[in-house]
Amino acid sequence: MAAWGERLAGVRGVLLDISGVLYDSGEGGGVPIAGSVEAVARLKRSRLKVRFCTNESQKSRGHLVGLLRHLGYDISEGEVTAPAPAACLILRERGLRPHLLVHDGVRSEFAQVDTSNPNCVVIADAGESFSYQNMNKAFQVLMELENPVLISLGRGRYYKETSGLMLDVGAYTKALEYACGIEAEVVGKPSPEFFKSALQQMGVEAHQAVMIGDDIVGDVGGAQRCGMRALQVRTGKFRIVANLIEMRSYWSRVSL
Amino acid sequence: MAAWGERLAGVRGVLLDISGVLYDSGEGGGVPIAGSVEAVARLKRSRLKVRFCTNESQKSRGHLVGLLRHLGYDISEGEVTAPAPAACLILRERGLRPHLLVHDGVRSEFAQVDTSNPNCVVIADAGESFSYQNMNKAFQVLMELENPVLISLGRGRYYKETSGLMLDVGAYTKALEYACGIEAEVVGKPSPEFFKSALQQMGVEAHQAVMIGDDIVGDVGGAQRCGMRALQVRTGKFRIVANLIEMRSYWSRVSL
Repeated sequence: MAAWGERLAGVRGVLLDISGVLYDSGEGGGVPIAGSVEAVARLKRSRLKVRFCTNESQKSRGHLVGLLRHLGYDISEGEVTAPAPAACLILRERGLRPHLLVHDGVRSEFAQVDTSNPNCVVIADAGESFSYQNMNKAFQVLMELENPVLISLGRGRYYKETSGLMLDVGAYTKALEYACGIEAEVVGKPSPEFFKSALQQMGVEAHQAVMIGDDIVGDVGGAQRCGMRALQVRTGKFRIVANLIEMRSYWSRVSL
Repeated sequence: MAAWGERLAGVRGVLLDISGVLYDSGEGGGVPIAGSVEAVARLKRSRLKVRFCTNESQKSRGHLVGLLRHLGYDISEGEVTAPAPAACLILRERGLRPHLLVHDGVRSEFAQVDTSNPNCVVIADAGESFSYQNMNKAFQVLMELENPVLISLGRGRYYKETSGLMLDVGAYTKALEYACGIEAEVVGKPSPEFFKSALQQMGVEAHQAVMIGDDIVGDVGGAQRCGMRALQVRTGKFRIVANLIEMRSYWSRVSL
């Protein structure tokens, strides 16, 4: 394995996943992963550009940033690339009026979007709102459309909360795809467009950026397909109980 | 197209799907499809053997038969091949102790099955019981197993109730398959074992039997792969509002 310095040569920007990398979400707002608050602070003091690239689709960016700041992170709303605002741009561009199968916590991101007489479905990590009734309603909307369009905010299989592993939006997207015989359009990681918009927002080329995440498909695979480098952390859904010293050591290396 | 007599030459037994073919389920027990009560009666007066081959997994056979008899059908519990009893046989043979993600209406079929310390998950058409919490519990059970076994009672995409199209178990099975990275074992149509057990129960060879259903995959494709003939009706999920006269004419032909 190449030395750290070599592997990160020429890096000008760092993209950080949030859930499972900075903190584990859960009851009471979640808990930071050891060493990550300090690592973010050090990254931001360094010569590197930093951006947060998340598939979080249960919370609005405002809510997410408030929660992370409360946990001690140096983060602002303008530094976050998230799927809901990216989806809103696409909806507007294509004249799509969504039926929203989303968590109440993210609904405010769609406040400016016309949702009357829907001609597509937007599915996000709706959590407890993934009731049979809500799933069936989305299914019926799709089946009534001549050209059913399903936009999925990410397609993660699961994520880790403090209480354990939780089904993510990807599982429910699969359910609707199968039932309707269609394929969803993914907005969020690992979609190349999503990574590209994050790179553009930080003004860094793909070969100058490294993505740090806990998901081998969404974070690592997606970033590499865009020409970025990627690091997988052993926290979050990686399901290895982090040894605090190892994690601190890891973060101190990553933050350069 | 060959004449009816030719297409049904040598037929000794008829397998009938129930939901969407005999009746549309729904509030208040559902409604019979025009002509089907009489057709079943005539079939049973004929020289043909008749068996009901259903993927119904929300209701116990007892409940289902009671409901159909109330609607006027000549049917008894011993004439029904259904996935829950078939699954119980498999569980016993393989020493599997299921976590049940099923509708309360079918739970009695599993009364004799050991469900302590589960080493597999059985998923059925749980309807309103497909809450996020219940799905996540089944997901967590599977993720804790070294060799996760998921048994799915059918894998239908959707079915028709009087109130509209409804998501079927297959959609939710897909969700768990995707989240866990596994493939479910299907008990029910279109599994060849399931059709074979129905044929065995009626004492008829595959080439002597015809399956009548509304599902092109579960009923028609599955039966044909077993060497049976199959007829697809335009009722149920076929989504064509049945013309009563056409349906009566159809049924009078099928019942020979």
